[in-house]
Amino acid sequence: MQRTMIFIVSLFTLLLSYGCHAQTETEPMLVEKNSFTFTDYTTLGGEVIPEVTVGWESYGELNADKDNVILITHFFSGNSHAAGKYAADDVLPGYWDAIIGPGKAIDTNKYFVISSDTLVNAFPHDPNVITTGPASINPATGEPYGLDFPVVTIRDFVNVQYELLQSMGITKLHAVVGASMGSLQALEWSIAYPDMVERMVSVIGAGAMDAWTIMALEHWARPIRHDPNWNNGDYYDGEAPLTGVTSTLAMITQQAMHPVIMNLRAPKPEVLPQAALESVTNSTPVLDYLFASSATRAPLADGNHLLYLVRANQLFVAGHNNDLASGLAKVKAKTLFLPATNDLLLQPYLAKQAVTELERQGKAPQYEEIEGVWGHLDGLFSIPSKAATLKAFIEE
Amino acid sequence: MQRTMIFIVSLFTLLLSYGCHAQTETEPMLVEKNSFTFTDYTTLGGEVIPEVTVGWESYGELNADKDNVILITHFFSGNSHAAGKYAADDVLPGYWDAIIGPGKAIDTNKYFVISSDTLVNAFPHDPNVITTGPASINPATGEPYGLDFPVVTIRDFVNVQYELLQSMGITKLHAVVGASMGSLQALEWSIAYPDMVERMVSVIGAGAMDAWTIMALEHWARPIRHDPNWNNGDYYDGEAPLTGVTSTLAMITQQAMHPVIMNLRAPKPEVLPQAALESVTNSTPVLDYLFASSATRAPLADGNHLLYLVRANQLFVAGHNNDLASGLAKVKAKTLFLPATNDLLLQPYLAKQAVTELERQGKAPQYEEIEGVWGHLDGLFSIPSKAATLKAFIEE
Repeated sequence: MQRTMIFIVSLFTLLLSYGCHAQTETEPMLVEKNSFTFTDYTTLGGEVIPEVTVGWESYGELNADKDNVILITHFFSGNSHAAGKYAADDVLPGYWDAIIGPGKAIDTNKYFVISSDTLVNAFPHDPNVITTGPASINPATGEPYGLDFPVVTIRDFVNVQYELLQSMGITKLHAVVGASMGSLQALEWSIAYPDMVERMVSVIGAGAMDAWTIMALEHWARPIRHDPNWNNGDYYDGEAPLTGVTSTLAMITQQAMHPVIMNLRAPKPEVLPQAALESVTNSTPVLDYLFASSATRAPLADGNHLLYLVRANQLFVAGHNNDLASGLAKVKAKTLFLPATNDLLLQPYLAKQAVTELERQGKAPQYEEIEGVWGHLDGLFSIPSKAATLKAFIEE
Repeated sequence: MQRTMIFIVSLFTLLLSYGCHAQTETEPMLVEKNSFTFTDYTTLGGEVIPEVTVGWESYGELNADKDNVILITHFFSGNSHAAGKYAADDVLPGYWDAIIGPGKAIDTNKYFVISSDTLVNAFPHDPNVITTGPASINPATGEPYGLDFPVVTIRDFVNVQYELLQSMGITKLHAVVGASMGSLQALEWSIAYPDMVERMVSVIGAGAMDAWTIMALEHWARPIRHDPNWNNGDYYDGEAPLTGVTSTLAMITQQAMHPVIMNLRAPKPEVLPQAALESVTNSTPVLDYLFASSATRAPLADGNHLLYLVRANQLFVAGHNNDLASGLAKVKAKTLFLPATNDLLLQPYLAKQAVTELERQGKAPQYEEIEGVWGHLDGLFSIPSKAATLKAFIEE
């Protein structure tokens, strides 16, 4: 079976790299990042954020009736850049460029596709991210909020997107589509604003966090909280907790990937490497491979923002009201769930729970699994295998 | 499918609790902990440990020919206490008591079963553990070794057990049986001393660590290394890095369990719990459930010992020589591999790799998967389902 999987991944890698090559070299869709600000946002927890600013971008044209809108909601370590390139010579396009663009599954010749950065985005220091969170300046003090920033939930992410759409006069979503944490927002949209949402697509998602996943998420928070530089969230005048953040990003990277793909990409473990035998704190090529990219990305991230994102995900129960069933009872949209068979982070049983409940309520959720060897990342890298399913769901 | 699994686990829990009840209430096998010391041990890395002391215990009687010996090698967070009770009123017997005892799969009426604590055991402050590691006194300085203790490997664990057996005049093992890290030792035994080992049983095991698992293990080390009290391993005069150790133990606990069993046992996640909404550092009942037991056990563990154990596991390639194939080429024992289908920590592909290579070499490894909902812990809690397989393998 593993040989078959290795063959399949080789095939996928080939297809993907060919696909990317063909599409990015010929005619990149150029996009620009915009900013949206509004004031006095009251969180689900009842706290007021005096000013919220988030980035957004769009692909395709809004029609006169403003009824051709598809909202894309992003994953934990992602941002609004779902498709296209900011400049023709960008190395990579947005993460779902394979399915968003002219003539693609989410067809920008037909739809106005919009995506925004969430509150407390993981990478506030990435120049392409615009977000509001603990690293933002608290107008009351002139200093970064730190842990004074209110705890926010997936519903708050949705409510901020609602404000953005309202500001553009958009009152109907042809579809909302998201992967991973984006899937939680997509489902929450269909509950918070059931009359606005016609179609909901949950990719590598869940209806509610279970105890096992809540615990798994907590481990992402711990390295940051243990880092002495974290200083109970008050570090904006000094050194950031970058070693803790690096450990957290490395953990997310490893857990989002399936062993088959990680073992293909990482260096082969050495037998009795001298450095590793000399000290338990010495690294190895395998560990260098994992930690190097995390260390590079760490300065763009913010430790507190990661803690807030962890908490937002831990608190997710679709609808945030009583239980999953009562939340799902409000859904009016057509729904499609696309978990990944080999996902080790949000395993398919989580999507199945939502599907089972929607079926029990007499709704007709669609369910298909994404096959692949990327694990959780199949929601990004193997999504072309569901392009036809997506297109049919969105256009029918 | 999940409902079926829940039914199965209920059945298992019932059977297990009945089994334990029946066996421990009637006639517990009483065992005692012994200690073995020898001097000037040279590690695989070429360093000398002036004095090594490890604990051991045994069940059954050594026969006159000393050829009825079965060695049990323990898992990462385990110790020599594989079966029986130290006192009649002990709450729990040793971890594999269901399969070790008079008339059981590993029949102490026939075999002399012996188990020892490893070097750098995770819980050196557990009064029932006797081990040598970074927390031990370095005779050269009169102070704990800390990171001056040499890095040790699974082969070193095996070599220390070899010294123990030699001291008793034992030159033949009817079988060596181990779970998880114990399975690495069992396999290593069959390569380091191929003429001594007649049968090898690897439960929830691997032939070599792959990049993905080496990375997963590294995450266990990080919370300890981030804890300011760790102080680069030099903390024996001050506060131990207990918060880091607690995070590490909690991570191990969660990853060793499958979501089905964890979700059955943990509290149900609350919807919008007030404390969790007030601060990202506030806990929830789900997190309390996970961390409370880890915090209780943390003072018995040692941060440095955990780092050394992580490194020993990361360095494992059976035979520690060139590659897995050349290691396995030395195996003369009959072999049995029992991975757990739902194991998320050492997934069955790891055991399959060793089995595939042994088959390629014309040997005849036996392979069966343990079904269950415990995940990695099926190697402990669902092992009764393989009692007949084990008994047949050991006695034929």
